[in-house]
Amino acid sequence: MELNGVEIEDTFAEAFPIKMARVLITAATMRWATVAAQEATGFGTSVIGCPAEAGIEMFVDGSETPDGRPGVYIQIYTFGYKSLEGQLLERIGQCVLTAPTTAVFNGFPDAEKQFDTGNKLRYFADGTESQTEVGGRKMHVIPMMEGDFLVEDSLGAIEAIAGGNFFIFADSQMNALTAAENAVDSIQAVEGVVTPFPGGIVASGSKAGANKYKFLKATANEKFCPSIKDTVEGSEIPADVNCVYEIVINGVDADAINEAMAAGVEAAVNVPGVKKITAGNYGGNLGPHKFNLHDLF
Amino acid sequence: MELNGVEIEDTFAEAFPIKMARVLITAATMRWATVAAQEATGFGTSVIGCPAEAGIEMFVDGSETPDGRPGVYIQIYTFGYKSLEGQLLERIGQCVLTAPTTAVFNGFPDAEKQFDTGNKLRYFADGTESQTEVGGRKMHVIPMMEGDFLVEDSLGAIEAIAGGNFFIFADSQMNALTAAENAVDSIQAVEGVVTPFPGGIVASGSKAGANKYKFLKATANEKFCPSIKDTVEGSEIPADVNCVYEIVINGVDADAINEAMAAGVEAAVNVPGVKKITAGNYGGNLGPHKFNLHDLF
Amino acid sequence: MELNGVEIEDTFAEAFPIKMARVLITAATMRWATVAAQEATGFGTSVIGCPAEAGIEMFVDGSETPDGRPGVYIQIYTFGYKSLEGQLLERIGQCVLTAPTTAVFNGFPDAEKQFDTGNKLRYFADGTESQTEVGGRKMHVIPMMEGDFLVEDSLGAIEAIAGGNFFIFADSQMNALTAAENAVDSIQAVEGVVTPFPGGIVASGSKAGANKYKFLKATANEKFCPSIKDTVEGSEIPADVNCVYEIVINGVDADAINEAMAAGVEAAVNVPGVKKITAGNYGGNLGPHKFNLHDLF
Amino acid sequence: MELNGVEIEDTFAEAFPIKMARVLITAATMRWATVAAQEATGFGTSVIGCPAEAGIEMFVDGSETPDGRPGVYIQIYTFGYKSLEGQLLERIGQCVLTAPTTAVFNGFPDAEKQFDTGNKLRYFADGTESQTEVGGRKMHVIPMMEGDFLVEDSLGAIEAIAGGNFFIFADSQMNALTAAENAVDSIQAVEGVVTPFPGGIVASGSKAGANKYKFLKATANEKFCPSIKDTVEGSEIPADVNCVYEIVINGVDADAINEAMAAGVEAAVNVPGVKKITAGNYGGNLGPHKFNLHDLF
Repeated sequence: MELNGVEIEDTFAEAFPIKMARVLITAATMRWATVAAQEATGFGTSVIGCPAEAGIEMFVDGSETPDGRPGVYIQIYTFGYKSLEGQLLERIGQCVLTAPTTAVFNGFPDAEKQFDTGNKLRYFADGTESQTEVGGRKMHVIPMMEGDFLVEDSLGAIEAIAGGNFFIFADSQMNALTAAENAVDSIQAVEGVVTPFPGGIVASGSKAGANKYKFLKATANEKFCPSIKDTVEGSEIPADVNCVYEIVINGVDADAINEAMAAGVEAAVNVPGVKKITAGNYGGNLGPHKFNLHDLF
Repeated sequence: MELNGVEIEDTFAEAFPIKMARVLITAATMRWATVAAQEATGFGTSVIGCPAEAGIEMFVDGSETPDGRPGVYIQIYTFGYKSLEGQLLERIGQCVLTAPTTAVFNGFPDAEKQFDTGNKLRYFADGTESQTEVGGRKMHVIPMMEGDFLVEDSLGAIEAIAGGNFFIFADSQMNALTAAENAVDSIQAVEGVVTPFPGGIVASGSKAGANKYKFLKATANEKFCPSIKDTVEGSEIPADVNCVYEIVINGVDADAINEAMAAGVEAAVNVPGVKKITAGNYGGNLGPHKFNLHDLF
Repeated sequence: MELNGVEIEDTFAEAFPIKMARVLITAATMRWATVAAQEATGFGTSVIGCPAEAGIEMFVDGSETPDGRPGVYIQIYTFGYKSLEGQLLERIGQCVLTAPTTAVFNGFPDAEKQFDTGNKLRYFADGTESQTEVGGRKMHVIPMMEGDFLVEDSLGAIEAIAGGNFFIFADSQMNALTAAENAVDSIQAVEGVVTPFPGGIVASGSKAGANKYKFLKATANEKFCPSIKDTVEGSEIPADVNCVYEIVINGVDADAINEAMAAGVEAAVNVPGVKKITAGNYGGNLGPHKFNLHDLF
Repeated sequence: MELNGVEIEDTFAEAFPIKMARVLITAATMRWATVAAQEATGFGTSVIGCPAEAGIEMFVDGSETPDGRPGVYIQIYTFGYKSLEGQLLERIGQCVLTAPTTAVFNGFPDAEKQFDTGNKLRYFADGTESQTEVGGRKMHVIPMMEGDFLVEDSLGAIEAIAGGNFFIFADSQMNALTAAENAVDSIQAVEGVVTPFPGGIVASGSKAGANKYKFLKATANEKFCPSIKDTVEGSEIPADVNCVYEIVINGVDADAINEAMAAGVEAAVNVPGVKKITAGNYGGNLGPHKFNLHDLF
């Protein structure tokens, strides 16, 4: 199968279930909401070595937020609800409560699973806290140096999906990077998903386990490493390919990830020098979620 | 003492010793170096609830880096060298190695304390790694999907200072925020320091311990909370003040923090509506480092 | 009438007919499309002293452009088609053709009025030009130093509307500016309009003509100047208002301007310190287009 | 001669005298100063088709400005003082006076040539204007809707130099663009110069006059066009080069342009895929200023 003259390999991305909380951060302006969102979702690329996977889902103006101010939806992922609750408390408490002009709303008010993160954060007020209602939401009012910080009583979480992905093969690093940047930009417009790696891009796609250094959970997937393609047996890198970027997508459900993968691949294949699109899987052993590239179009 | 007509209180900021590693991230362009630096320093405002304190120190062009590419210096802080080594490994391994086009150099090549972070990261190459030299630095070459990732063998650390600070009192939140933004911008030009909070600004300055919720290590400093100034006994908030922002500064040594505090205060007092500058301390009991506001000028 | 507790004055914005060309600039990435769009729409706030009024209408990803690349729609306004053709030729020729990786498409392919701007720009190729088709558009291929520049043969124009507006009255400059920034951000999401002033905001709303310096076509509207409200007879500035910003909106038709004014006002009234929304008109003598504030909601 | 393994051709950039005004724009924050500066310097790439050449020279914090606020220095160029005065009046009057929170200071207070631009802009106040002094500068105070706009009485101008340049030859467009971006970033740090083209980069270097379309003052320099290198007699494009970007530098004097050219070339040659650096001249007939590439290092 080809798209804009670029081969789309007949393979699938393998993804797995994970827990995810979604939080709406509002602020005096979109810029300050974004500052808080970036701090709160940093150090959040992969649960292999980060305390959570996290990213910015979308930007909304005041017509779509309970307090009428500009806002940013962020998503935070870990494998269990217990660790997710801890990450919510720390990331919201340390990176949003501390940020100028922010307020925090529940991004999944209808989810079955609800954490009382707002109720716990109110203890910071040390007895001076109170309650109010904003747009029908139960809010804690925490007096602080800048004024009052408002946080919704509960923050919801769901079982979501991590690890949707595709690989961009290109003739040069700068062409591959241009394709990856455009893919991430197009994915940004899809509701319900995040691309948790730096700038949304993975430079270092890995395999599970190791051939040599068995103490590692994940190591470079040498079959996809262009600089050693001539010496690695079974290299998957064609002669005309010199760079591969992976785009990893987490999201609320399979439909959102399907939509995001399609948007990303379509953006990537429009960039000159892109030679092939493929995807990463573990032979179907890791995750119950399979996203066939050929089914995207 | 007054500066530009604004009262500078006769008090001091109290700061404490901490361990700090400094890392130079280079990339194909300044933009991509910055993307990696932001991810690597995120979720890094305060060790009270974050695994480290971290921030961007400065931007340098290729004439100042070993590989001739644009670069960003970041700083990472924790209380002990053991935890610092862990944070370095995770933040560089998960947020810089994974980011497009980056390389990593030692930001303290002459420090006595050196971690072999680069040597550990090379295991990711699973046996395909090699060594080279760039600008006199010993580098590990890790083949990856995008090409080769280069990381210096050792990353240095020093005993540094955390908690330099000052408070901006203003008549309104937007005036206080403008003053805080300008203060952070001026501090950004000072070598050797970072402002680890979101956008460099703290909205929620705290006191050690609690009056009511004793299970917390830090709670809101109610004497500096404008919205409850009329009901809190001993409130430090004057009648004409309605917002306070704190700027927290970590840095390599006392000179750097002095310079940064002076630059920040001078920027802040130029903003209309700023009423007073003060600083946070614990009566001199917490930290051995004291920065008198009146000594800054 | 009140919105979120803020008075909406019972008045109208008075706007007038003008000619407008709409151009789609695509590039290798959204960032480079934006660089070209900013250069091409600069020095374009008001035809009183600029050669054109111009602005960025919207950002589209590759799924919405003829060449599958990210793009930016810009609008350029002058009073006559002759001057508009001149501005198109100069702004596209000097600021987009010269910019890295761009291509130019007709933003009004179905308009009756079409300029042969692309056909004229091909002369830059000095005989080396050729033709091709992209997404059904007739394109000129101009060999240049970076490679080939593609520009559509014709660029369309319509009779549009300039001068939709509203005024934000606030208690302080920083509150007024926050409200103006949020208004402009919300208007940016409305298709068909631009806000041509710097950052979308007018700090210096004017009246037609002059009281004293009769040689000027427009001077400050002293009745809306807070710093002289106590000395100007008939000042429109209430005692509690210390800053006014005007948002000026140009657009394809009355519906688009209505939608943009409503979005902007709703964003502005959510900002603390905003006291009143009003609009600018000339008693109905200048323009045939009237936008009643009370009809917006 | 080689630099980092890249051939530096033994040739020179030819530049010419031009008039230039330098203006310091301050604002409430650096961001708002930049918004005004971008609007005021837009539509300003080349006097061939723009009313002026213009660009942002440098960013300074409040410690370096008369009013203690963050500021941006811009430069505006035309061939004669008369046209320069007109451009100053229009660009400052329409794009800075209208922008939120700005003030305007003379960037060449000691120059012999001074325009009374501030004195003319005060007429906008229609009789409500007054005078004051800021940092020893004579300022006009113009009441406006946002408050008072301050502009210095005189704005100075000098005889400067336009057309310093160098060409980056690379194997691919994305590599050439990366080199150009880094060159512009490094030049941005040099005091006294601007790069007036979009993003500082010229995609369409031209020759004076035309071979075929004699009615044009400048056309594409076909000998530097990679896409037609095989058909153009005397093409200067080697077989392994597929993209050329030109960096054009204007500045206060020959020393500044020398420094900027050196910084730019050094940044460019560090990018993989860059094959050669050369420069544009007209055989020495156009301009009295010659910048030999080999003399830069």
